[in-house]
Amino acid sequence: MDSIKRNEIDIVKIGASKINEVDFENLAFGNIFTDHMLVCDFKDGNWQKPTIKPYEPFLIDPSAKVFHYGQAIFEGMKAYKDEDDAVWLFRPDENFKRFNASAKRMAMPEVPEDIFLGGLNEILKIEKEWVKKGKGNSLYIRPFMIAVGTGVVAAPSSHYRFMIILSPAKSYYSGEVKVVIAEHFSRAANGGIGAAKAAGNYAAQFYPTKLANEEGFQQIIWTDDATHTKLEEAGTMNVFFRINDTLFTAPTSERILDGVTRKSLIAIAERDGIDIKVQSVLVSELLEAAKNGSLKEIFGAGTAAVVNPIVGFSYKDDYFELPKIENSMASQLKDNLTNIQYKLAEDTFGWTVKI
Amino acid sequence: MDSIKRNEIDIVKIGASKINEVDFENLAFGNIFTDHMLVCDFKDGNWQKPTIKPYEPFLIDPSAKVFHYGQAIFEGMKAYKDEDDAVWLFRPDENFKRFNASAKRMAMPEVPEDIFLGGLNEILKIEKEWVKKGKGNSLYIRPFMIAVGTGVVAAPSSHYRFMIILSPAKSYYSGEVKVVIAEHFSRAANGGIGAAKAAGNYAAQFYPTKLANEEGFQQIIWTDDATHTKLEEAGTMNVFFRINDTLFTAPTSERILDGVTRKSLIAIAERDGIDIKVQSVLVSELLEAAKNGSLKEIFGAGTAAVVNPIVGFSYKDDYFELPKIENSMASQLKDNLTNIQYKLAEDTFGWTVKI
Ligand SMILES: Cc1ncc(COP(=O)(O)O)c(C=O)c1O
Ligand SMILES: Cc1ncc(COP(=O)(O)O)c(C=O)c1O
Repeated sequence: MDSIKRNEIDIVKIGASKINEVDFENLAFGNIFTDHMLVCDFKDGNWQKPTIKPYEPFLIDPSAKVFHYGQAIFEGMKAYKDEDDAVWLFRPDENFKRFNASAKRMAMPEVPEDIFLGGLNEILKIEKEWVKKGKGNSLYIRPFMIAVGTGVVAAPSSHYRFMIILSPAKSYYSGEVKVVIAEHFSRAANGGIGAAKAAGNYAAQFYPTKLANEEGFQQIIWTDDATHTKLEEAGTMNVFFRINDTLFTAPTSERILDGVTRKSLIAIAERDGIDIKVQSVLVSELLEAAKNGSLKEIFGAGTAAVVNPIVGFSYKDDYFELPKIENSMASQLKDNLTNIQYKLAEDTFGWTVKI
Repeated sequence: MDSIKRNEIDIVKIGASKINEVDFENLAFGNIFTDHMLVCDFKDGNWQKPTIKPYEPFLIDPSAKVFHYGQAIFEGMKAYKDEDDAVWLFRPDENFKRFNASAKRMAMPEVPEDIFLGGLNEILKIEKEWVKKGKGNSLYIRPFMIAVGTGVVAAPSSHYRFMIILSPAKSYYSGEVKVVIAEHFSRAANGGIGAAKAAGNYAAQFYPTKLANEEGFQQIIWTDDATHTKLEEAGTMNVFFRINDTLFTAPTSERILDGVTRKSLIAIAERDGIDIKVQSVLVSELLEAAKNGSLKEIFGAGTAAVVNPIVGFSYKDDYFELPKIENSMASQLKDNLTNIQYKLAEDTFGWTVKI
């Protein structure tokens, strides 16, 4: 990322790294953070000088707008280490653009490229020991922005904080995933903020997901809120359906997040001659395909789990089990994508960026 | 509120009050806070002992779930002082119940009555000097709860913080209010969180409201997201429409907040023989009424502004001006409600509660 270096940055290094206290073989996702974080404030209409400093709690006013009005957005991306100890990002420009699209929708200031990507480059150079070699290992990257301006009046803040924190991750195996097809609750409105990675979208899903968990299901596949007839996406993943040998995934919209994994899988599928259609699947079509045996696979796609096969789904009072198949499209696509990410296959798309 | 005293509470008083530095004649809404705040944590499955202590910033981890997943809810209520220097709350049980309904929808723990109402009672006794006499003056009360547990994994927190902060307020005059009828953007989904006072609902409105502001309109009246044909509510107010001598307000639903002001105005209107119908008004009905002259008034209703008359609205490319009328229902209802709140009229409903 030579063209987006950040030269002006204050760096305060930690005294002693805590890396030796970390058990890299037994990492729960998103619970351990590296030694440093990047912090950059927006105030008086301008982005201030960013700082990389020890990861630690910070002071915030009880009336900060993020607490009361939810101005908060984030991104999720990963750094990978190749066999030669080089550290790589995957399509970071996509996360950068999506972050600023989210910022705009939430009436927050856009973050300049040299702060987001340049700052990320700098902190990753400092934290490179935290990126472990070996397929499945990665350093999960969480850029986020919150409104820290004060005052309990429902209007945009004039003071924001952009931060990057980093969490080492192992390959994410969540066990067998069974899903519920939403018939009452929804994640996003027409003309709402579903396409933004806004904090409020996630808490909204916790209660319906808890109800699903209580019935033995791990996740929900959301449907459109107006009719509950169209299959949309899962909590933190886009969703693919394979009917016979055609793979379907919903077009993105105001209600659906434009996932980087989703669009990369579509490109790989097209390159590899898989019959892929960007087209909504109706609940009725899913049920019919499940009943007549043409439904072969369902899987989620997102940065955290990459590809997450779904073993069964419930709709109203019925439960449908997916067939167990060899050479699934899910595993084929996952291998092809992760081989690019870990520099084990040629990156013909030009997606990987060296730190 | 004798029955809901909170006996177990730690109290740490401020050294010197800052009350003499405050210009009570020139208060911007929600920017100045009193000397103390109430703080109570939920962890290990239990509510801890609440503390009343000096208002000040607090430390929070960068990975706190409120920043990433938006688990945050709030309430808005007011304390009033009568001519005999007694301090009163208005229907505090309604805010308490709504707070816990919001908590449930956001998969957060419910706050016990002795902490919410009992704690409020205690802090108001300490801050009673901050409640100024005279109609229009009040102490705005902001109870809120945030997820302070750490970790960037999209699941409910196990650690929460409930707080009450207090801000002195003058009567809220926002100038002439012109509104836009929403035709594309939306505030809430069917099966979503519109009926909860969840932080994320508010930031979602900032960008569309900014666009409206740029066109010279102060607020938006939201319509249902599926068809944009039904008038719902405004950003922080329920909405009433008077057509000839009938007053309409939408029924509450999953998409519409169950406002305390709204339900109090309905009760007063019924008592006073106003023809009030709890029934959605369609955009088409509004346009027709505006064109044929039967549309007499539109006003918002909420705790902050009490009743907020709207002078005109735009829909698509048309702008409609409301007639200027004497003896408006808006001002009649506002007087009757505020007289109860300030103990200037008999409270036949039993809504007011003495501290
Ligand atoms: C709602 C939602 N859908 C889909 C995704 C997948 O997006 P990506 O592949 O960019 O991680 C995410 C993010 O992780 C998400 O939060
Ligand atoms: C979305 C929304 N609608 C309506 C209201 C009015 O509710 P209340 O009268 O209880 O203040 C509020 C709160 O203030 C609100 O946030």
